Order: sequence, then C-alpha cells, then structure tokens
Amino acid sequence: MDRQTLIGEIFRKKSFLCIGLDPEPDRLPVHLKEADDPVFEFNKQIIDATRDTCVAYKPNLAFYESLGPGGWLTLEKTAKYIGNDHLIIADAKRGDIGNTSRKYAEAFFKHMPFDAITIAPYMGEDSVTPFLEFDGKWVVLLALTSNKGSADFQGETLDSTGGPLWEHVMRHAQKWGTRDNLMFVVGATHPEAFRRVREIAPVHFLLVPGVGAQGGDLNAICRHGLNRDCGLLVNAARSIIYASQGPDFADKAREEALSLQSSMQALLKDIPK
Amino acid sequence: MDRQTLIGEIFRKKSFLCIGLDPEPDRLPVHLKEADDPVFEFNKQIIDATRDTCVAYKPNLAFYESLGPGGWLTLEKTAKYIGNDHLIIADAKRGDIGNTSRKYAEAFFKHMPFDAITIAPYMGEDSVTPFLEFDGKWVVLLALTSNKGSADFQGETLDSTGGPLWEHVMRHAQKWGTRDNLMFVVGATHPEAFRRVREIAPVHFLLVPGVGAQGGDLNAICRHGLNRDCGLLVNAARSIIYASQGPDFADKAREEALSLQSSMQALLKDIPK
Repeated sequence: MDRQTLIGEIFRKKSFLCIGLDPEPDRLPVHLKEADDPVFEFNKQIIDATRDTCVAYKPNLAFYESLGPGGWLTLEKTAKYIGNDHLIIADAKRGDIGNTSRKYAEAFFKHMPFDAITIAPYMGEDSVTPFLEFDGKWVVLLALTSNKGSADFQGETLDSTGGPLWEHVMRHAQKWGTRDNLMFVVGATHPEAFRRVREIAPVHFLLVPGVGAQGGDLNAICRHGLNRDCGLLVNAARSIIYASQGPDFADKAREEALSLQSSMQALLKDIPK
Repeated sequence: MDRQTLIGEIFRKKSFLCIGLDPEPDRLPVHLKEADDPVFEFNKQIIDATRDTCVAYKPNLAFYESLGPGGWLTLEKTAKYIGNDHLIIADAKRGDIGNTSRKYAEAFFKHMPFDAITIAPYMGEDSVTPFLEFDGKWVVLLALTSNKGSADFQGETLDSTGGPLWEHVMRHAQKWGTRDNLMFVVGATHPEAFRRVREIAPVHFLLVPGVGAQGGDLNAICRHGLNRDCGLLVNAARSIIYASQGPDFADKAREEALSLQSSMQALLKDIPK
C-alpha cells in the first residue's frame, strides 16, 4: 500500500488506528481452543470485527515464532486473510549485514504479503537499504521506542550532534529512504518528544506503539505528532484483542477499537485542510 | 552448552571455529536440488563433514525465513541434527519490549534446541534480559558488527563516556549478564578494536564474524582477542559452505574448515597455561 492510498484510507475511515495482532495461546478465549488453528481463528474473528475501524494490522513475529514451525503458517494465513485494503506491518525488528537483510526482505515482501517491516537501526545503512529496494514496500525504523530500556542507548547524547542517538537515527536515515518508503517508530510513552520528532521528520509517517496497555495518551501524542496528511499510525494490541476473554471477545475488541477510532475522528477534524 | 563445556571442547578439538549455516537455494549444488528438502540435505552433509573441526554452528535465520513456512521446519531439523555436542547459535538479531522478547526466547530456547541467540541492543535492558533468564542459554549481543554500516551509529562518540556507542553497549550490558550467559559480537573487519574490546570485556566470549568472504584476518583478531580461556568463537560461513558447488562440496567445505582449524590450533598453543 502506497502513501497516497494510506492517507486516503485514513481520511475515509476517519481512523489512524493500527491493531497489533499479538496472540498469546494462554489468553485466547476457551471456546477457540478446540479449533484446528486457534490462533488463526482468533485473528480472523478480531479482523472481521475491526476491519472498518483501522487502517493497518501489525502482527508481531515473536508471537508466531513462539508457536513453533506451525506459527509461521498461521502468520502467513493471517496476512493473506487481511488482504489488500489494510497496510500490513510485520513487527519483526530485523536488520543484518546486506546480503542477509536482503533475505529477510524477500521473506516478508516476496514470500509473504507484508507491506512494511520494523527494522532496528543498530547495524546502520547496509542493514536497512535492502528493504527499501522493494517497490511499494516500507521500512519502519526504530527511533525512540516505547519501553523503559529506550533510555539505555537511544537517549545517549552524541558528541557529533549534541542531541540524543534517536534523533541522529531519524535524521541520518532520511538519506536512505523517502516519505514514500520510510516511517519511524516513536513510542507514545514519550509524548514530550513529539514536537522535536516533527522538527526532524515533518512529513514522514510515525508508527506509535504504547497506547493502551503501555499507558500512552492519544491526545498527548497528537498535539505535535499529527501533520497535514495525518502522519500517524497509532498501534494498540492488548487493550483491543484481550478486551474480553469470553465468547464476546470479538465484540468487545470492536468496542475498544471503535472507541479509539472515535477519538481519532475528533482529532483528524482539527487538521487544517 | 555451558561455558566450561565450551572451553573444554575448544581445547579438546583445538578449534574455536563456528560454521555459519546460511544456505542460499541458488548456490546449492545442482545434484541436491532433487532432494525432499535440499537445504536440510545440504546442511546435513556440511555438518557431517565438519563436526570434528568446529565447536559451534550458527544458522542465520534470514536464510530460513526466506524459504517460506517450510524454512522454519528446515531450521528446526537442522538444529536437532546438530545435537548436543556443539554450541548452536540462532543468528536472529532479535530484541523487542519485555513481554515480546520473552516470546522470542521461548521460540528459540524452549521450542527449538538453540543454546544462544544474537540480539540487537538498540532497545536496551528489558529487550535483552528476558533471554538471560533461561538456564544454560546465552545472549550474543551485537557490539561492533562486521559490516560497513557499523560506522553509522556504533561508532558515534557519546558525551557521557567520551567513547563510541559500541563500547558503552559492552560495558553497560555487563550489568545484565555474566561471563556465563553473555557474549558479544565483534567483527573481524575491525582488528584494531580488539585491544580495547579486551580492556572492556576481558573474560567474555566474543563471537567474531567477518573472517572469510568479508575479508577479516584470523591472526590479527587473535593478537589481542584471545584470552586464557580462548574467549573467541570465529565464524566463517560462505568461504566454507560454498567452497565448491559441485558434488564434492562437503569435502571442500571440510578442507576449508580444517585449514582454519589448523591455524587456530597454532594460535591456541600460544595461550599461557
């Protein structure tokens, strides 16, 4: 899905919600556990219940890899089931030397129908650029993550710039990709950073995790985070997909997603035309 | 495999060679392409031909993920085929928020028989420590990688320490793990860094990629890299596994591995008892 289509979908659906599909076998509703592929059945019902509320889905690879070899099949089925009307992000945090990153890019962009993949920047340019060589596909580069450990290295001040590492990552990576194939991860748990983020990357889309279970506040990140094209994809996973663990889990997931969508609709109204 | 066993194996086999199992379908010998699972057959013959020459195998996940869902089965079969007498490193470059890193750890340490996994440090402490909670398992943390892009961020000088980021990563991570469950990746393409590496981490094992196809020199890294327990695992992949693409590929792989092993034997002799 290209940038114009994504922006079109955001304003049509009045939503910049991304739903994280991070299924944990222990937290699935009991009545699904008899299904052939309980995780796929769970995802399918969540997707059916939320399609019109969101513009993106983001399966996190860890939750599929931890299912063993079958998990990879479940992931592929899930991505195919989502189809072409949503941006599908592989939350994979990959990144390796050039010839190896190329293989990862093939895995997610050629063999599976993902539109985007999250990448860790530690290994630098040649670990990122192989993913940018696929037409219509996106790199979502970690900049300032939502977790406590983001302070350990991302927050270190650099001699060369006088600013923190994460700012340098955002600035430097813009030499490799464009607004059409590069987004950044900025955690909702750092609302104070969004003004600075928009100084450094005014036009790029940001993928914002940390709303919901991690405690980030939607209004706080939108104050400076929204740009003319919206420019945000706000992810929520656990607060939606585990809104209930009963037979009504899909309905409750829809309620949670609609509640976020309705807040987003109000925020999108404030964007100057 | 624990540290004492690993050291024992190194001195018994007179080798600190790690063989990278990074199979590319296009580069497999033609006569294997008819096999049920050509990549597994390739790995199996490489392993059979090199078991006594090396102490570790390191499959890089990208080469299995790019095979599609079946690749994960091939990876699992390969790890099981290696067995318990070698350290098995999942070269996966993972790392995510705490609850997610835990899932990755389960994938590699519970569901598959890996002893160690490579981790990217960008997301900090809570992205790394879940992997350290598994008895007898190892984190191999990226410090100074072998690729050109390692200069982009790893080499940035920090205000707080006056040294480069990679040194800070090595120093800081030693608060999270010990010599018994934490190694560092230091690329053979930076021979000049090994003296400094050993000042910062005198006792930890280092996983050293970049010898062979990437041009690193074994003697140069050993000058300062070896410690009393050896302390090095030197990885070679392409130069061994693609030494020939003919029917003699396993024999040629063995020759290459033995040649490295023999250089290592000479270097190990110089370690003071």
